[in-house]
Amino acid sequence: MSGPELSTRDLDSILEFTVALARTAGELILEGSDAIQSATASKDVNEKKNSVDLVTEYDVRVEELVKKELAQKYPTFKFIGEESYSAGSRPPLTDEPTFCVDPIDGTTNFVHGFPFVCISLGLIYKRRPILGVIFNPFLNHLYTGIKGKGSHLTKGNGQPLKLPLSSPPKPLSSLSQALIAVEWGSDRGEKTITSKSASFGRLAGNPAQEVMGGKMAHSLRSVGSAALNFALVAQGGLDLYWEVGCWPWDVCAGIVIAEEAGGLATGGHEVFAATSSGASFGDVTEEILTGRKYIVVRAVGEAEGETAIQAQKRIIKEFYSSVEDVDAN
Amino acid sequence: MSGPELSTRDLDSILEFTVALARTAGELILEGSDAIQSATASKDVNEKKNSVDLVTEYDVRVEELVKKELAQKYPTFKFIGEESYSAGSRPPLTDEPTFCVDPIDGTTNFVHGFPFVCISLGLIYKRRPILGVIFNPFLNHLYTGIKGKGSHLTKGNGQPLKLPLSSPPKPLSSLSQALIAVEWGSDRGEKTITSKSASFGRLAGNPAQEVMGGKMAHSLRSVGSAALNFALVAQGGLDLYWEVGCWPWDVCAGIVIAEEAGGLATGGHEVFAATSSGASFGDVTEEILTGRKYIVVRAVGEAEGETAIQAQKRIIKEFYSSVEDVDAN
Repeated sequence: MSGPELSTRDLDSILEFTVALARTAGELILEGSDAIQSATASKDVNEKKNSVDLVTEYDVRVEELVKKELAQKYPTFKFIGEESYSAGSRPPLTDEPTFCVDPIDGTTNFVHGFPFVCISLGLIYKRRPILGVIFNPFLNHLYTGIKGKGSHLTKGNGQPLKLPLSSPPKPLSSLSQALIAVEWGSDRGEKTITSKSASFGRLAGNPAQEVMGGKMAHSLRSVGSAALNFALVAQGGLDLYWEVGCWPWDVCAGIVIAEEAGGLATGGHEVFAATSSGASFGDVTEEILTGRKYIVVRAVGEAEGETAIQAQKRIIKEFYSSVEDVDAN
Repeated sequence: MSGPELSTRDLDSILEFTVALARTAGELILEGSDAIQSATASKDVNEKKNSVDLVTEYDVRVEELVKKELAQKYPTFKFIGEESYSAGSRPPLTDEPTFCVDPIDGTTNFVHGFPFVCISLGLIYKRRPILGVIFNPFLNHLYTGIKGKGSHLTKGNGQPLKLPLSSPPKPLSSLSQALIAVEWGSDRGEKTITSKSASFGRLAGNPAQEVMGGKMAHSLRSVGSAALNFALVAQGGLDLYWEVGCWPWDVCAGIVIAEEAGGLATGGHEVFAATSSGASFGDVTEEILTGRKYIVVRAVGEAEGETAIQAQKRIIKEFYSSVEDVDAN
């Protein structure tokens, strides 16, 4: 291969650079949020851009800022983002270092001023996510991870906290003990909505009170940002997150952060069925990273006769037997 | 009446005291969270209390702290909380000043370490909520409101920000433009879950893609704390929040904070049908406060030929025609 080889020292340096870049991008996101709230509040809509224009404008501005800075500092690295796909072509991954970035994850939240918005900045190397930075400027929460070196949460100006926050990790006996993140997503057609409604109802429902297949989960949460859901699973505040229809740049950083916190990420129903009995289960391959169906379970404490990965597999199996597969439209 | 008369100066003083008390309670909540995460992570469960015991313990400790401090400072004031109801009796409101407190709102989040947990501290006077303090120690977000004096959000050590954050308020043309908070709640029986699943699906669904009655809302959010949902509506980050089954202490503080931010709160389907055409619409009466069914809409900018309250009424009408009424069990 022709690309540069990345050392541990390189990755430390890339993390330092991308964290600073994410914080700069965060300032631009906050500026955009102010502009959107003012514009939508203005009665004189003709004189101001509407909120949709402004969201697009700031999405583009943040992406351009990030692309430019990354290209200057790392001219040989590739870049994958929404724009790379929007032309219709989907370039396959290579072995070379490739930034995989969502400039503003949680766009609907951004429009409304709901404080779960972040920049998600991942690095893929040899076709695997190996570095991730997620920064929510509204809460000033920074999540970072490097493959093999753990992941951390920094709140405000505080010290980085090793993830998961609970150490050793908590056990997870079944979905009935779980706090689960699900999202309504952007595909609102009859097939997807009917399927999701039924699945979410089964997850929440009490089988002892006539909910067929009910799992009586502790509860369901929806915050509207894929990257922050991964981060919350890494942290241990959520036990599981399931998503269909989002893109590699929404999850790339989150995968590293969750894995380095002891979490396990994989793909949809079919991928799980095909890979869960193999030795490579838990390896987020190119197929999984680009497959648009994701599930991630937090670090689970080992219990008698069960390793952490066996427990995570058991939970995913229970989950996928409870929810219907849906198409990523 | 025999109780004390409350002046504006009294309310300022009560706010100062209850804010300090909420911050002290917040420290205890954080201590409890650490204890719970450590206990659930411990393999040696016999030596430690389990998480359910600890949640109960800290719920009681925070309530006792708050009750004791309030009773010392305001010995003539009454107090309503879960304990007042749990004995089976439900004392009616009086005209006297009455604190209405949920020591830990978002208990499921508290157990899991999901950072939407708060103390909700309200004051009722002459049967109406008139003062509210909501403090989330995990995000260090403090919301306050006094009837007639506006409401504010203080992030960390920052200056108080007047609510709503967007001023003048944004318009809201229909549910299709709305970010809506709903919760799965604790009633997981077949009737409620089937009804909620169907209602949530209709709110999210696209009528142009065969979802019958679909409203194609921008999206649905679920963060798991009634008080913080009210606070987020007050802030303008959520457009609407609907809840069935929670209690006066979950919403009392939030009602003041939302109302003072220009929001409108009322009760369930029946209350709305009975009161929305009257002049007192938007007055949170004892019936509404204790009715266990709530809806709150954020401040809405006036538009041509429509006042703010007319817009809020229109949105609630559209909402209640889209979701089924459910029982508060």
